[in-house]
Amino acid sequence: MTNPASAPRALIMAGGGGTRFWPRSRQNLPKQFLAMRGDRSLLQETADRLEGLVAARDLMVITGKAHVGRTREQLPGVPGDMIIGEPTGRDTAPCVALAAALLARTDPDGVFFTCPADHVIEPAGMFRKALQAAAQVLQDHPNAFVTIGVPPTFPSTGYGYIHRGESIGSRLGVEASKVRSFKEKPPVETARQYVASGEYLWNAGIFAWKPRAVLEALGRHKPALREGVLKIAEAWDGPNRDSVMAEIFPTLEKVSVDYALLEKHDEVVVLGAPFQWDDVGSWLALERLNPQDAHGNTVQADHVGVRTKGCVIVAPKGRTVATLGVENLLIIEDGDCLLIARKEDESAVKEVVEELKRAGRADKL
Amino acid sequence: MTNPASAPRALIMAGGGGTRFWPRSRQNLPKQFLAMRGDRSLLQETADRLEGLVAARDLMVITGKAHVGRTREQLPGVPGDMIIGEPTGRDTAPCVALAAALLARTDPDGVFFTCPADHVIEPAGMFRKALQAAAQVLQDHPNAFVTIGVPPTFPSTGYGYIHRGESIGSRLGVEASKVRSFKEKPPVETARQYVASGEYLWNAGIFAWKPRAVLEALGRHKPALREGVLKIAEAWDGPNRDSVMAEIFPTLEKVSVDYALLEKHDEVVVLGAPFQWDDVGSWLALERLNPQDAHGNTVQADHVGVRTKGCVIVAPKGRTVATLGVENLLIIEDGDCLLIARKEDESAVKEVVEELKRAGRADKL
Repeated sequence: MTNPASAPRALIMAGGGGTRFWPRSRQNLPKQFLAMRGDRSLLQETADRLEGLVAARDLMVITGKAHVGRTREQLPGVPGDMIIGEPTGRDTAPCVALAAALLARTDPDGVFFTCPADHVIEPAGMFRKALQAAAQVLQDHPNAFVTIGVPPTFPSTGYGYIHRGESIGSRLGVEASKVRSFKEKPPVETARQYVASGEYLWNAGIFAWKPRAVLEALGRHKPALREGVLKIAEAWDGPNRDSVMAEIFPTLEKVSVDYALLEKHDEVVVLGAPFQWDDVGSWLALERLNPQDAHGNTVQADHVGVRTKGCVIVAPKGRTVATLGVENLLIIEDGDCLLIARKEDESAVKEVVEELKRAGRADKL
Repeated sequence: MTNPASAPRALIMAGGGGTRFWPRSRQNLPKQFLAMRGDRSLLQETADRLEGLVAARDLMVITGKAHVGRTREQLPGVPGDMIIGEPTGRDTAPCVALAAALLARTDPDGVFFTCPADHVIEPAGMFRKALQAAAQVLQDHPNAFVTIGVPPTFPSTGYGYIHRGESIGSRLGVEASKVRSFKEKPPVETARQYVASGEYLWNAGIFAWKPRAVLEALGRHKPALREGVLKIAEAWDGPNRDSVMAEIFPTLEKVSVDYALLEKHDEVVVLGAPFQWDDVGSWLALERLNPQDAHGNTVQADHVGVRTKGCVIVAPKGRTVATLGVENLLIIEDGDCLLIARKEDESAVKEVVEELKRAGRADKL
């Protein structure tokens, strides 16, 4: 039944909204469309990274309906009808389920990789190697869900963890193990124990699986969701694609793929990521992803600093930013907004967005 | 010889350059042309303040040659040829000397008031009262130089001081005294003694005098300067006004009126200012001159603050400034520049300007 020779496909999940990069990310310009280093957006980097393993014509991108146009602009190599707009965000399970249903129409047993559109991963070659290793696992275990876990470098309380179990050997030098359990974002003490034990990996939301296996698991654990996406897939090539999508998709259960599928599946395999990973979770990521000047400032702007240390400074072309006597600030100008925050408050940027909402400033969101 | 009934005239000295209000003040837009509260520029406020005492047609404004156009725009009531451009800045003595020489042509014994264009003074009525009192002193002492000194409110090391001597009685309720001496900007210990003694006033650069007396004093103390301005005055109504001005003015000694005239004159009288005075010396003046929000922020911008205290925030229309967790910052956006500084470093804003010069960024100055 399986056809190991068929070319792998990939789903890029580009549905993120996100307020942590305000004012650069806005409702109509979420983080995945932004370049965080160099010129390519995170979404473009994600597609670039798959190049050589998955052809552009075999990419599927699911994003918010409002962002389909921008996605097509940024990824001109991806066939237009492989860029799909969700009428409303329903978290990751309906997204993966829809992709599985659509891909099953042509090749239910072909591997499809699944990854978020807004992470930074280096080097790309090791990322592809890990996915190839995952595909090899699927040759032996066609019903498995394979996930790539990231070895933790600090006791993060912001990520989920995967408890690695018994080894099933390595593929292409990448160690594969059964998954014992998934753990929600832990308190810091627990996170410390996880890291110290060496048995835990961060859940980075990167998967390899087959449409048939995903649909079968949905049938067991989320039958209504399976029904819904199959109806959409049935109508896909007819005249009612848009209306059926608009009618059914918003009714699908809003649930994460981790909760709906991974945690419930009986055959989940985790590979230890052989690459550097950053989820670009907030403005401080710029500091990790870019070089600093002699005073520890991360600068993407025309900047003149006097006694300025450890700041992250971003401004558009044409603007000159002068700083005097300040340390550890985020100074971010974008469009018609300017954000000045303490670096240590970076995770509270959403409070600014909430404050803008309260103040009725939808135009600035 | 004196004609006490003649209408008083006034010289507004608007030659300031100044870097302490960068980025709002630039080489081509010095502080006197900026509004620091409300809509009127400091220059316009200065002219407004004299209204009722000196008619607009009797104002003379001396500014930098490059700023004549803007001055005429801002003060449409002042006759165009009473707005005079200095080819190069030569400090205040040549400015006062030229005014005296020009005014002497029509009324050498008429009072002329002299004041800087870039201070804030409240209330205007008390300012006019002080000038009227000064004019009354000149009725009795036509050769005197009368200056208005400001009672010090803190031991400033940034202002010059006037040591008040023997009283010569009050005029219109304003106490007048002989001046014992002028003191340069003192160290803080000395400044404390000055303030504690009650015998010292700040030198605010506000004067009342007569053209004849100024020219006579120049003849004694700065004869070359007198010669120069008389030559310019002689050519003023002929075809060579501009060429003579351009030729002679830059050769005049660059010296302050305090040093050239006040400190050397034998008959200097000081009146204690019955008004509030602010020299608007730096960005912190905005805090003194404007109300604060509930968190002590001085805001001239569309501002959304989360845990933000004691900041001074200025940005143009259309910009939204969001602040998060920051205290006591200056956040000033103007034109193509943005300044972020610690409030306590406000007197060091000139270092930013110097840094821009070093970096060859004349376009930002």
